[in-house]
Amino acid sequence: MSWTNSRNAELKERAAKVIPGGMYGHESTALLPADFPQFFRRADGTRLWDADDNEYIDYMCAYGPNLLGYRHAAVDAAARAQMELGDTLTGPSEIMVTLAEVLVGMLGHAEWAMFCKNGTDATSMATVVARAHTGKRKILVGRGVYHGAAPWCSPGPAGILSDDRAHIAYYRDQDPQSLADAMKEHAGDVAAVFATPFRHETFRDQAQPDATFAREARRLCDAEGAMLVLDEVRTSFRLSRDHAWAALGVAPDLSSCGKVIGNGQPISALVGGEHLRKAAGSVFVTGSFWFSAVPMAAAIATLKIVRESDYLERITRTGTLLREGLARQAADHGFALRQTGPVQMPQILFEDDPEMRLGYFWTAAAVRRGIYLHPYHNMFINAALSEADVAATLEATDGAFAALKAQDLKHLPLERPAVRERLERAAALSA
Amino acid sequence: MSWTNSRNAELKERAAKVIPGGMYGHESTALLPADFPQFFRRADGTRLWDADDNEYIDYMCAYGPNLLGYRHAAVDAAARAQMELGDTLTGPSEIMVTLAEVLVGMLGHAEWAMFCKNGTDATSMATVVARAHTGKRKILVGRGVYHGAAPWCSPGPAGILSDDRAHIAYYRDQDPQSLADAMKEHAGDVAAVFATPFRHETFRDQAQPDATFAREARRLCDAEGAMLVLDEVRTSFRLSRDHAWAALGVAPDLSSCGKVIGNGQPISALVGGEHLRKAAGSVFVTGSFWFSAVPMAAAIATLKIVRESDYLERITRTGTLLREGLARQAADHGFALRQTGPVQMPQILFEDDPEMRLGYFWTAAAVRRGIYLHPYHNMFINAALSEADVAATLEATDGAFAALKAQDLKHLPLERPAVRERLERAAALSA
Repeated sequence: MSWTNSRNAELKERAAKVIPGGMYGHESTALLPADFPQFFRRADGTRLWDADDNEYIDYMCAYGPNLLGYRHAAVDAAARAQMELGDTLTGPSEIMVTLAEVLVGMLGHAEWAMFCKNGTDATSMATVVARAHTGKRKILVGRGVYHGAAPWCSPGPAGILSDDRAHIAYYRDQDPQSLADAMKEHAGDVAAVFATPFRHETFRDQAQPDATFAREARRLCDAEGAMLVLDEVRTSFRLSRDHAWAALGVAPDLSSCGKVIGNGQPISALVGGEHLRKAAGSVFVTGSFWFSAVPMAAAIATLKIVRESDYLERITRTGTLLREGLARQAADHGFALRQTGPVQMPQILFEDDPEMRLGYFWTAAAVRRGIYLHPYHNMFINAALSEADVAATLEATDGAFAALKAQDLKHLPLERPAVRERLERAAALSA
Repeated sequence: MSWTNSRNAELKERAAKVIPGGMYGHESTALLPADFPQFFRRADGTRLWDADDNEYIDYMCAYGPNLLGYRHAAVDAAARAQMELGDTLTGPSEIMVTLAEVLVGMLGHAEWAMFCKNGTDATSMATVVARAHTGKRKILVGRGVYHGAAPWCSPGPAGILSDDRAHIAYYRDQDPQSLADAMKEHAGDVAAVFATPFRHETFRDQAQPDATFAREARRLCDAEGAMLVLDEVRTSFRLSRDHAWAALGVAPDLSSCGKVIGNGQPISALVGGEHLRKAAGSVFVTGSFWFSAVPMAAAIATLKIVRESDYLERITRTGTLLREGLARQAADHGFALRQTGPVQMPQILFEDDPEMRLGYFWTAAAVRRGIYLHPYHNMFINAALSEADVAATLEATDGAFAALKAQDLKHLPLERPAVRERLERAAALSA
């Protein structure tokens, strides 16, 4: 096999000297199978090349931002044309107004938009706007649900004070009764309820959007005068050309949009309804690069394609083909997969795999065969993925299943013992 | 005069419908003279064009990021070449390692670097790393000093809870005795002391870096086991090719770098000493676009120029020429200016101008003459500014002084009454 990782190993050694832990954040491979490459060289369409020049069909899409394919011609052309004009200036470019008009025109609940850089910027801004509007303090979030990496929401405990979360309260994710209980407990002081459009946490099965929960969350927020915040950082435009609960007939007060807006260019947004315009105008939020023009030009180009192309139908079709093919293949090899959530955002876990030894072996075998799959995080389908790519993927995964079947399954290694603790945490959330 | 602002007015009307308040954050012109343009079209070198195509010599430099000139050829070429490879990928590019090596090699106190997007990312990360390392809670910051726009530090009160600042304590900026008092009050619980390299707050005179304060801050932190955080988001590489206190012989434990690292491309960083490596590796901090490769390629190119060119000597020379020329000119017209802080970051305030009516009129007159000056925020000199540009600037400011002198100075309008409150706040800090 031509797959090698010597350059990656070299880079990891160098990185260990100048980057704490060699890497940090959501793109660290510390918890992934040892063979997963940490460093990459280039990308194109649905393909990704690591530092050793191994080629992958990439199902992580940069953990979300890649919606249309890496280096999408129209988006890149818009970015390059804007670079000829200017990027980070002493004031915003006039295209900021156009982009706000575009986004407000697309999202049914939105009357205004504020742009920022990362998802955490948008979710944190939502807490501030909701508190400014309501004059109340509590933010209710689903326990274990990822809303970013600021002290109020980061999943890692190091350096976080209990006081950072003095007014964060938790409910059982997507559970109307638990939300009702939390609302009751904090009655009179609830500024906002955060929700994701569907369950999409790491190490767990996903779920489909739940109309019962969405409607009940809306009703409870209305009764309490709390703001319903739909956190779409991970899901924007992957389920819908509108916000993700539009199909359920439930409109949030605020929603955080992220990742895909500029197809990989750094931009995120908070949008909201008319009743929140004044509060949104009263808060002081900003960032050195929030008003840069190149990501806005890329976003205008990306959102045009979202509105006018069949990208959504295509990612749904290729996502379905992949899911069906993998299910058949797993059964043929005598394995059972749990493939959950919308097909555009696949989560693939093995049945009877309490410590993810099967999943780790299988995804590592897929990686060595040129298919970048993730063992515990939901993946993403991008619109550059063709049916031929899915067929090539399935050929490789067939090999990965066969390699797995050839193992002594009772004695697969546990490469990352820390996975146990993550699985226990996930199981506790489902209990 | 050919200066017009009808397109800007049109854009502001459109913006008012889809952006709260028409604009937000540090690039809002809400508090600036009414003629200041809100929206821009393009930039090149030291020149900026607004939405009406009025051309300016720009002394704001995007509020900092423009160090070498807008659309700098070498930096843009590096960014474009990296775009051909890829930007936001499923993992960092291998050039992240190179960039960390470069930054660690340049900053005397740095043994590691963590990259992020905005200044607030870096300063917030510093609080978390310092708390993780020390196990203590208090963060001491200079009262009224800007360290970002997160709830723990935002200068705007709307939507902020007192609990967001439960463990933020304040000292009188750059005052050793006040810092000693605050340290004593919170003895045993101080995680970090934040400082800027010199006083550079809005609406106030700046100061030069103060060796007495720097040394005393270092000594107090050492005695208490607190981390000294030098917030260089605004000052990185404008005073020095090392950190800004290197010339004073005082090394911080952590420093936040921002704005200029990629000459306008979105990237900031937290760097720190060996003793903080473990804590920095233990915290969970991340962002969708923190590992994007294009800004890192731009940063490598920018920092090469910082190391190898005479940019610093040039911005010092042109900054000096501007300061000297303005001082002469003001005296000739019978005005007295307070030009404070390092010449590379000019702050220009009028004597005997308690409500900034003179400063507002004069900067607006300069803007209408093609020179973008700021009435209350420190400005920035970029390396594309030539001596001929300074001469052209002085020709225009001469006209602005003459126009000011022709006014009935006792009855200049107060266009923005909110300035009064900001000036009172600034005066209280100096009292």
